Amino acid sequence: MNFTQGRQSILVSRTHFNSMWKNGIFSLRNILNKEPNINLNNINENVKRLEYAVRGPLVIRAGEIERELKSGTGTDRPFNSVIRANIGDCHAMGQTPLTYLRQVLACASDNALLNHDTYPSDVKNRTKELLEYCGGKSVGAYSDSAGVEIIRKHCAEYIRQRDNLDADWQNIVLTTGASEGIRSILALINTSTSDPKPSGVMIPIPQYPLYSATIAEYGMHPINYYLDEDNQWSLSVDELKKSINKARSVCIPKAIVIINPGNPTGSVLTRENIEDIVRFAINEKLLIIADEVYQHNIYDGEFFSFKKVMHEMKATIELASVFSASKGYMGECGLRGGYCELVNFDPAVKQMFLKMLSARLCSSVLGQFALDCIVKPPEQGEPSFDLYMEEKDQVLTALKYRAGLVADTFNSISGISSNKVAGAMYAFPKITIPPKAIAKAAELKQAPDFFYAMELLESTGICIVAGSGFGQLPGTYHFRTTILPQNDKLEEMLNIFKDFHEKFVAKYS
Amino acid sequence: MNFTQGRQSILVSRTHFNSMWKNGIFSLRNILNKEPNINLNNINENVKRLEYAVRGPLVIRAGEIERELKSGTGTDRPFNSVIRANIGDCHAMGQTPLTYLRQVLACASDNALLNHDTYPSDVKNRTKELLEYCGGKSVGAYSDSAGVEIIRKHCAEYIRQRDNLDADWQNIVLTTGASEGIRSILALINTSTSDPKPSGVMIPIPQYPLYSATIAEYGMHPINYYLDEDNQWSLSVDELKKSINKARSVCIPKAIVIINPGNPTGSVLTRENIEDIVRFAINEKLLIIADEVYQHNIYDGEFFSFKKVMHEMKATIELASVFSASKGYMGECGLRGGYCELVNFDPAVKQMFLKMLSARLCSSVLGQFALDCIVKPPEQGEPSFDLYMEEKDQVLTALKYRAGLVADTFNSISGISSNKVAGAMYAFPKITIPPKAIAKAAELKQAPDFFYAMELLESTGICIVAGSGFGQLPGTYHFRTTILPQNDKLEEMLNIFKDFHEKFVAKYS
Repeated sequence: MNFTQGRQSILVSRTHFNSMWKNGIFSLRNILNKEPNINLNNINENVKRLEYAVRGPLVIRAGEIERELKSGTGTDRPFNSVIRANIGDCHAMGQTPLTYLRQVLACASDNALLNHDTYPSDVKNRTKELLEYCGGKSVGAYSDSAGVEIIRKHCAEYIRQRDNLDADWQNIVLTTGASEGIRSILALINTSTSDPKPSGVMIPIPQYPLYSATIAEYGMHPINYYLDEDNQWSLSVDELKKSINKARSVCIPKAIVIINPGNPTGSVLTRENIEDIVRFAINEKLLIIADEVYQHNIYDGEFFSFKKVMHEMKATIELASVFSASKGYMGECGLRGGYCELVNFDPAVKQMFLKMLSARLCSSVLGQFALDCIVKPPEQGEPSFDLYMEEKDQVLTALKYRAGLVADTFNSISGISSNKVAGAMYAFPKITIPPKAIAKAAELKQAPDFFYAMELLESTGICIVAGSGFGQLPGTYHFRTTILPQNDKLEEMLNIFKDFHEKFVAKYS
Repeated sequence: MNFTQGRQSILVSRTHFNSMWKNGIFSLRNILNKEPNINLNNINENVKRLEYAVRGPLVIRAGEIERELKSGTGTDRPFNSVIRANIGDCHAMGQTPLTYLRQVLACASDNALLNHDTYPSDVKNRTKELLEYCGGKSVGAYSDSAGVEIIRKHCAEYIRQRDNLDADWQNIVLTTGASEGIRSILALINTSTSDPKPSGVMIPIPQYPLYSATIAEYGMHPINYYLDEDNQWSLSVDELKKSINKARSVCIPKAIVIINPGNPTGSVLTRENIEDIVRFAINEKLLIIADEVYQHNIYDGEFFSFKKVMHEMKATIELASVFSASKGYMGECGLRGGYCELVNFDPAVKQMFLKMLSARLCSSVLGQFALDCIVKPPEQGEPSFDLYMEEKDQVLTALKYRAGLVADTFNSISGISSNKVAGAMYAFPKITIPPKAIAKAAELKQAPDFFYAMELLESTGICIVAGSGFGQLPGTYHFRTTILPQNDKLEEMLNIFKDFHEKFVAKYS
C-alpha cells in the first residue's frame, strides 16, 4: 500500500496497515513517521521500568476473553466465564457488603435519609456524629489532609484496644486505601537527586508488587530478601543480613517492608519472628513499614502488631503501619479508605510528611466514613450490633473454610505444593513445570510460570498471577490465587484447575 | 533544669523544656539527644522544599483560632467564627449538594434503596446502569485503574457535546480529583535521575500551588511565566518566550501548564490568547497541560477548551486536560472525582501511563459515580431534570453575583484593586502595603502580604491566602480570596475587610 503525503512517500505492508488501523495509531503523524513530542525516548525511565503484575498482561488478556464471551465470539471456548482469582477484590467475587457500613454511607450521601424511619438509630447517630466534623456538615467538603478529626480519633481508639497500648490520633493519617500511605512514606524517605546513591528499601520475595512498582517509579533500590518457603514463609535474620550487606555498596538502606499476614504468601508471622525483625531493624537503623492490612484475616495462629511487639521490646525506632477498608471482612476495595499510623517519628519529620500530604488535599471522605465503621463497629446493645457481628462472622468463617480447602486441594495434586494459608486471602503454591514447557516458554520469551498461567487462562478461564510477578527463588515456579471465589465456585475452580494441571503436565512430558 | 539519665547529664532551659513538653517531643530519645533514624537530614530534600500555601501556616493558625473559639478561651476576640475564604471548598461555605447526585450515591451505597419508593426512577436507573459495570455490581469492588468503563464513556460523550468534536473514551482516565491526574502526568514526563538536567514545566505566576508543590516534590524545574495583571491576567507570548529561553540552560522544557478559567486569578482566556499559546507550544514542542476544572464557572466571556481550539488549528501536539467534581456548580471536593483526557498521545506512551496508574489500583468508585452525574445530568423529560437544572442555576447565579460583588467592593477600597472575576471562584486583588508594615514584616521574617493576611486573620477571623503563596511580580503584593461565602456572609466579610484595611493602613502609615 502506498501513501503519498506531499513529497513524502511511505510504503506500509497490509498487515502493518491493519495493525495500525486496529490500534488506533493511524494518524497523519504516523504516516509521516514524525516522532511525537512525548515519546518512549523522553518519558520517565522509571515509569517504563515499573511492573505491576496483579494488573498486568494476564489480567488484560482475561478482560479480552470476557469481552469475547460477552459478545458471543468466544463461544467455542470450553467455559462461559472468567474466574478472577488474580486480585483480592472481595465484592467482585460475590462477597456482600456490611449492611451497617453501607447504610451509614447512604445517610451521609443523602442527608434526607436521616429523617426517615428506614434506618436504625445507631446508623443515623453515627452519620450525624461524623458529619459534625465535616465542613458544612457535608461529605462533599475537603477534610483536613490527614483526615476527619473524629475518624482519626476512632482509629486511635481501635489501635488502643487492639494493642492495649496508647495511640495518639495525631499520629494517624487517613489515606486513599493503604497504597497511598505506603507510597507517601516511600516518597518521604527517598533520597534527593543530589544524593550519590539511591535509597534502599528491603522487600520480601515474594512480595506484593505495589512495593516493587513504587520503588521503581521513585528510582529507589529494592533490597530483596527471600522468605523461607520451607518454614511457612517465615523471615530468617541471616537472610536479612545477607541481603542488606550485599546491597550496601549500591544503595543507602533506609527501610524494611514486612507484610503480615503475608501477601502473596498467606503466612502469619510468629511473635518470635517479629522480635527478630525488630532487633535487626534496630541494629541497621531502619524504618519498619508494617503492611498489616490483613490483620483481621487470621485463620491459624495469632496476629501481633509490630507496634505492640516493639513497645514490649522498648524499641524506639520508627514504624509506619498501614491498614485498609479493602480487606478484612469488609472488602470495600472501591471505597479507597485506609490509614497509616506513624510511631516514634521525629515531630519535625511528621510535620514534613503532613505538609507533603497537604498537596494531595485529602482522601475520599466517604472512604473515611467507611473506615470509621470498621474501626468503630456498632456496640453491644445498639440496634445494628447483632447483624454486624453475624455478617462479619459469616465472611470470616467462609474465608477460613476456603483457606483450608485451597491448601489441601493443591497439596493433593501431584506437582503442586502449598504452605498452609494461615492468613490474608491468598495461596502461593509451588509448581513443578516440565522441562518441555520451560523450553516452550523460553521460545515465547515468557517466564515458565507466566506461560503456565496463560495456558490456564486460555483453556479454563481461571485468571491467576504467575509467581514471577511477585518474585521467587530462581529456578522455582509459583502462582498466586486468591481464596475469594464463593464456596461452590471455588470448589468448581479447584476441580478444573486439577484437571488442567494434569493435562498440562501430560502435554509437556 | 537537670536530668540525669545513666551517666549522661543534660541541661535544658525551662523555656526549652516547656516547648519540648508542649510539642510532645519529650521522649527518652530527646533527653538523650539521640538522632532519630529518620530525621530532617536524611529525608527527601524535595519534600522539605515543597510548600502548599492553600493549606499552610495561615490555615493552621485559622484552625487554632477556631479551636480557641470553640473551647471558650478565645472569647476576648472581636469575632465569634473564622471565615474560611482560603480554599475553594464550596460545601464548607454553605453550598448545598445536588439532590440527584447524592441520591445516586445513596442508592449505590445501599442497594436496598433501589427497591424503595423514596427515589425517582431516573436515580434508580442511573445507579443500576452504573452498577452493571462494577465487579459484583458493587461500588466496593476495584474498578479498572482507568475507571469504570461506562463512566469513561459518559465523560467522552460530555466532551463530544461540549466541543462538537469526537472524543475516545479510551483516552480518558478517572482520577482522585483533578490533582491525581496532574500529578500523574507530571510523573510520566519527569526525567530519570540519570538525565543531566531536570525536566522543566512552565507554570503561570500567580499559580495554583499544587503545581509548584508537585514540581518540587518530583525534583522538576518550574519555569515561571508571569500573567499580565494589567490585561486581565492574560498570557503574553513574549513573556512565555522570555521565560523558556532563560530556563533552557538549567532544564529540559517539557510542558506548559495553563489554568483556564484561572486560579487564583479568576480570569477567562480569550480564544485568540489560547491560539497564541498553542502556537507557542507547537514551536517549543511542549505538552499542554490544560487545567480546565472551572469550565462551568464562567461569569463573563466564554469558555474555549484547549482541545477544541487545537483541533480547529489542526494542532497535533499532545494535550492533557483535567476536570473535577470538586468545582463547577456541584463543588463535591470531598468525593475526590475527576478525569484526565489525553489527546494526541503516542499509544505506547498512553500504555505506559495506564501501567503507572495501575499501581494505584483505582480512584474512589463513589467519586467516579459522582462525576458521572455531572458529565451526564438527567435529561429533559426525566423526573429529576427540573430540580437538577434549578439547583445548578441557583448556584451559578449566586456565584456570578458574588464575582461582581467581590471585585467591585475591593475596587472601592483605597489601596486595593482587583481585576474582573470572570470565572473560577477567586479574586486575586493587588494591595498597597505601607512601608512601615513592610518593615515590620521583615522584622518578623515574613512576606509583607503574609503579614497582612495574618493580621487580618488575627483581628477579624477572615482567612485568606497571601499572594506570595501563589507567586507574583517582585515588589507587588496580593491575596487570594474565594467568592464562596454565602451572599449575606460575603457582604458582611467584605465590610469587615474594608474596615480592617483602613485601620491597617492607618496603623502603619
